[in-house]
Amino acid sequence: MSMLLIKNIGMLATAKGCSPLCGAAQHSGIEIIRNCAVLINGDTIQAVYDNDEAPKCENVIDANGLLVTAGLVDAHTHLVFGGWRQHEVPLKLRGAGYLEILQAGGGILNTLTATRNATEDELYLRAGKVLDEMLSYGVTTVEAKSGYGLNVEDELKQLRVIRRLKEQGSFNVVPTFMAAHAVPPEFKGNPDGYIEFICTEILPKVADDELCEFVDVFCETGVFNVEQSRKMLTYGQAYGFKTKIHADEIDAIGGSVLAGEIGATSAEHLIAVDDAGIASMARGGTIACLLPGTSLYLNKDFAPARKFIEAGVPVAVCTDFNPGSCPSDNLQLCMNLAYLKYRMTPEEILAAVTLNAACAVNRGESIGTVESGKQADLVIWDAKDLDYLVYRMGSNLAKIVIRKGNIVK
Amino acid sequence: MSMLLIKNIGMLATAKGCSPLCGAAQHSGIEIIRNCAVLINGDTIQAVYDNDEAPKCENVIDANGLLVTAGLVDAHTHLVFGGWRQHEVPLKLRGAGYLEILQAGGGILNTLTATRNATEDELYLRAGKVLDEMLSYGVTTVEAKSGYGLNVEDELKQLRVIRRLKEQGSFNVVPTFMAAHAVPPEFKGNPDGYIEFICTEILPKVADDELCEFVDVFCETGVFNVEQSRKMLTYGQAYGFKTKIHADEIDAIGGSVLAGEIGATSAEHLIAVDDAGIASMARGGTIACLLPGTSLYLNKDFAPARKFIEAGVPVAVCTDFNPGSCPSDNLQLCMNLAYLKYRMTPEEILAAVTLNAACAVNRGESIGTVESGKQADLVIWDAKDLDYLVYRMGSNLAKIVIRKGNIVK
Repeated sequence: MSMLLIKNIGMLATAKGCSPLCGAAQHSGIEIIRNCAVLINGDTIQAVYDNDEAPKCENVIDANGLLVTAGLVDAHTHLVFGGWRQHEVPLKLRGAGYLEILQAGGGILNTLTATRNATEDELYLRAGKVLDEMLSYGVTTVEAKSGYGLNVEDELKQLRVIRRLKEQGSFNVVPTFMAAHAVPPEFKGNPDGYIEFICTEILPKVADDELCEFVDVFCETGVFNVEQSRKMLTYGQAYGFKTKIHADEIDAIGGSVLAGEIGATSAEHLIAVDDAGIASMARGGTIACLLPGTSLYLNKDFAPARKFIEAGVPVAVCTDFNPGSCPSDNLQLCMNLAYLKYRMTPEEILAAVTLNAACAVNRGESIGTVESGKQADLVIWDAKDLDYLVYRMGSNLAKIVIRKGNIVK
Repeated sequence: MSMLLIKNIGMLATAKGCSPLCGAAQHSGIEIIRNCAVLINGDTIQAVYDNDEAPKCENVIDANGLLVTAGLVDAHTHLVFGGWRQHEVPLKLRGAGYLEILQAGGGILNTLTATRNATEDELYLRAGKVLDEMLSYGVTTVEAKSGYGLNVEDELKQLRVIRRLKEQGSFNVVPTFMAAHAVPPEFKGNPDGYIEFICTEILPKVADDELCEFVDVFCETGVFNVEQSRKMLTYGQAYGFKTKIHADEIDAIGGSVLAGEIGATSAEHLIAVDDAGIASMARGGTIACLLPGTSLYLNKDFAPARKFIEAGVPVAVCTDFNPGSCPSDNLQLCMNLAYLKYRMTPEEILAAVTLNAACAVNRGESIGTVESGKQADLVIWDAKDLDYLVYRMGSNLAKIVIRKGNIVK
């Protein structure tokens, strides 16, 4: 195994351990080490040294006094899809609502058709390009959901694309099965029937091929109700998968309460979450995956991040990258929004895009911190401290990105 | 002179002529040409051809069916300053207001001290790095204001830095003298005295050394009132400079009315503008330079862009890059915000960051459109149409940037 030393690190900022950080614990949980060096052995972090006490090494990166953190984790993306939806721009400017756009062949059904019509290779090349862009922002692990196929063949196609990205790319890609993303035209007006179809016709095949780690469902007024969502996630758990749930984006119909009850790993969006939902998530150990880019893009409210933190619910911040409500794959922009709109501290934001996000994709043991034994995913930032990272807006501050010990940017 | 041909342009989108576009005229004013080629002769655009009729050329760039526009113009920046202000992040999160931050040595006085303490070389290197980043976003012309020196020596120092950037870099940099940016400690409580000092002690030296093209003033409650602003700009006009005015950012105290009355080239911010101000600007031919990044960063309202357009006032969209209220130099992000928050159309936004912005820096004759005889500042975008350019958020879509006929990215 080859060794690599990053020396002259001005500030190393990292969470510690394998459990998500929250509230008061978060501040003590983030460790700031000045003037240090990190030794990498193959794909693993070997040790952190005082800079003056670092061992000699043939391969050295001089960090020049800059900030180093763990590689970022984007724990909520709809990475794989066909088409874009820029043609909706004039419609939206004319004031067309969600339904009007849907009736004009737009919205999620547009992406559904484009995804079904795309070949696996096409989807692979498109998603790979996005992953390269994410990597350039310092993101080294990405969760990716299916949910634009909505039938056996095309859901499996999306998940196979995610597997190829994982196997062939320089990326951790964590696959989530989300056929319960919308009701497809074939089941129009029959969400119960579609959930039954997913659970009995698609999910078993996904399990046979070991194509996912998580199951997710869109629990929302007009999409899937709490009982349909419970059924979806319970079936997923029966197959041994972990669970996520899109909850309380528009209405608090009980999705976040369900998340805590079934011990979901994470709940997503949560703009309209109520106290019962927050309390249930705190009891269930559910992480709140908040998506500030989507709030900005849709002119919606921002989720009550501070309420989660105060209640002991760990917060992750993610892009929600998708072609409709958030065509942005820039997690750094979300970090900046987390400061400006969620009023999270730089330390809370670091935890939210490293360890907490790693735990939200069930990778807390292997990534998300800069500690001996963890995978060598690291970013050297064009920044001298953590405050600067959330203060600058719209710049790409990732200077050098290391993934599994390899310099990938 | 060497010739360069950009062929296989899928869509060329450009304003036409030398006057800013507005309202209904704007739509017909933006010309969309498909499947074309642009021939560049030295630093000048020679002609636009149908792709099939383009002449042979030794130097060819294949645009591969992508979108091409004129190079972007950022018509409002505070480019040259010492220090950053990330140390204010924790203060702001604790709820500290503008005054408390100022009293803690923060705010504009912090930047004032850092700028005064910096050498000309230090400021030059820092600003040059920002210009390189702006160029990477497709920006080929930048307005830059003084206003962090606030005395003879340091205002002249800032303006000399801007001149060096202009002479030595691959950039148009347009200098604006803005000693009337704040009242310095030396004139605390005496804005009248400071304006008199600027007009009689600093401005003549700026004029002697030909260090600016524009004069600007911050007309706002608690900074400079209308009469002080009028004096500042009238003196500027007497020296032959064109004028800009920071107006109605917080209160409509008459800055926008003044702008129209004196025929200012542009007024800036305009979040709180009233009908009288809009009408005056329309009469005076004043361009509205709107700064959506600042509204986002400060959690403020967004300026009423559509009202300006409806009233016949041309709109430019700019970053307002500065270390306090908008530490973002990304004009593409502002274009996206202009769509999401100002509800401007893609065509209006293109005009706002090309021809209208060029006119706001008095360069409408030479840049801002893709037409025969204009300077060869062009961007090939990683986009196939104009809608896509405003639809994607947070990505850098500038693929190839040409400035004065040279490929600079």
